Amino acid sequence: MEALRKAILEQGRGIGDNIVKVDMFLNHRLDTRLMFDMGRALADYFRKDTPDLVLTVEASGIAVALTAAHYLGDIPVVFAKKASSSNQSENLLTAKAHSFTHGNDNILRVDPRYLPAGSRVLIVDDFLADGQASHALISIVEQAGCKLVGVGIAIEKGFQPGGKSLREAGVNLKSLAIVQGIENGEIVLAPED
Amino acid sequence: MEALRKAILEQGRGIGDNIVKVDMFLNHRLDTRLMFDMGRALADYFRKDTPDLVLTVEASGIAVALTAAHYLGDIPVVFAKKASSSNQSENLLTAKAHSFTHGNDNILRVDPRYLPAGSRVLIVDDFLADGQASHALISIVEQAGCKLVGVGIAIEKGFQPGGKSLREAGVNLKSLAIVQGIENGEIVLAPED
Repeated sequence: MEALRKAILEQGRGIGDNIVKVDMFLNHRLDTRLMFDMGRALADYFRKDTPDLVLTVEASGIAVALTAAHYLGDIPVVFAKKASSSNQSENLLTAKAHSFTHGNDNILRVDPRYLPAGSRVLIVDDFLADGQASHALISIVEQAGCKLVGVGIAIEKGFQPGGKSLREAGVNLKSLAIVQGIENGEIVLAPED
Repeated sequence: MEALRKAILEQGRGIGDNIVKVDMFLNHRLDTRLMFDMGRALADYFRKDTPDLVLTVEASGIAVALTAAHYLGDIPVVFAKKASSSNQSENLLTAKAHSFTHGNDNILRVDPRYLPAGSRVLIVDDFLADGQASHALISIVEQAGCKLVGVGIAIEKGFQPGGKSLREAGVNLKSLAIVQGIENGEIVLAPED
C-alpha cells in the first residue's frame, strides 16, 4: 500500500537489526488520514469474505481495526485486553502471547459474549512479527466457535517468522507493507505484491 | 448525545453503586457506528477552538479520539502510554494517574516530539470519573508548552469528582453523557444539557 510504504520509508527508523520504529504515525502518534487509508485497504481486500466483526488487541491495533470495520459497513470491533481489571467478567476466553517488544507474556482476554459462536471474524493488528499475538487471537476465535476469515496487518516484519507460520497454516493473510530487513538503520521494504 | 444515552440505558449495566459497565459498546466491544457518531459530536463542539491534535490515553480512549480527529479534518492523535517498552525513547513527558478500575497507579508517558510546543491540544477520553487521567494529560500538555483547548469525554460519572474539578479549574469540558448515579443496578443519566 503506497501511502504506508511512503510513511515507513520517509518517517520510520530502523534500530539495530530488529526494531521498526514507526511510533510517529502508527504506535504512539496516529496519522489519522493514513489510519483511514489503511482501514479502507484492508476492508477492500477482505470485503468478499464478509466478516461480521473485527478482532484486535489493545492498544495500537485499535485504530486500524476501527477504520477497517468502518469501511466494512460499520461492523463491530472487539479488542482483546492484556490486563485484568476489577470490572471484567469471569469466564473469559484467554490465550498467551509473548511480547518481544515488552519482554513479557501477555494473557489476551476476550469476553465470549462479544464473539458469538458462528461469527465470521477478521483479525486486524498493526504489526506482525513473531506471530504470537495473531496465533493467540486465532486460538480465541476457535475457542469461541467462530470462523476466521483472515488476518489483516499494517506492517509485517518479513524477517521474523510470524507471516510464514500463518501462511503455512493456511490463514488468509494480508499485510499492507512487508519489511524485508534493516540495513544500517534504513528500513528495507519487500517489493509490493 | 441521544445515541450514546440510548446505548447506555439499553445496553449498559450498573454494578454496585459505582461501576458503569459499558464494555458491550465502548470498552471491549466497540459499536463502530456509535464511535463515529461520538467523534462527530465532539468535533462539532470543539471545532471553533481549532485544535491541532487530539491527545488521549491507551486503550479505550483511542477509538473516540480517532473519530473526533477525523471529523476535525484528520488532525493527528497522540495516545499516552501506560507501560514502558524496550523501544520507547528516553526523556518522555510523564504524569501519574491512579486507576480506580485497575486499582493501581499508571505513569502516563508521551514522547515530547509528538506534542510540539504551541500546539492547540484537545484531550479526548472514553470516561471521566475521578479525573486522574485528565489531570495527568493536562499536566503533560503544560509540560510540553502546548495550549489546552478543551476536554471531550464520552461518559462522565457525574457522582465522582472529576467533572467538578475540571470545570472549577476553568477547563472547557464537554461530556456527551453524564451518569448521575446507579440505583438498584439501573444507570440514571443526568438530563441532557
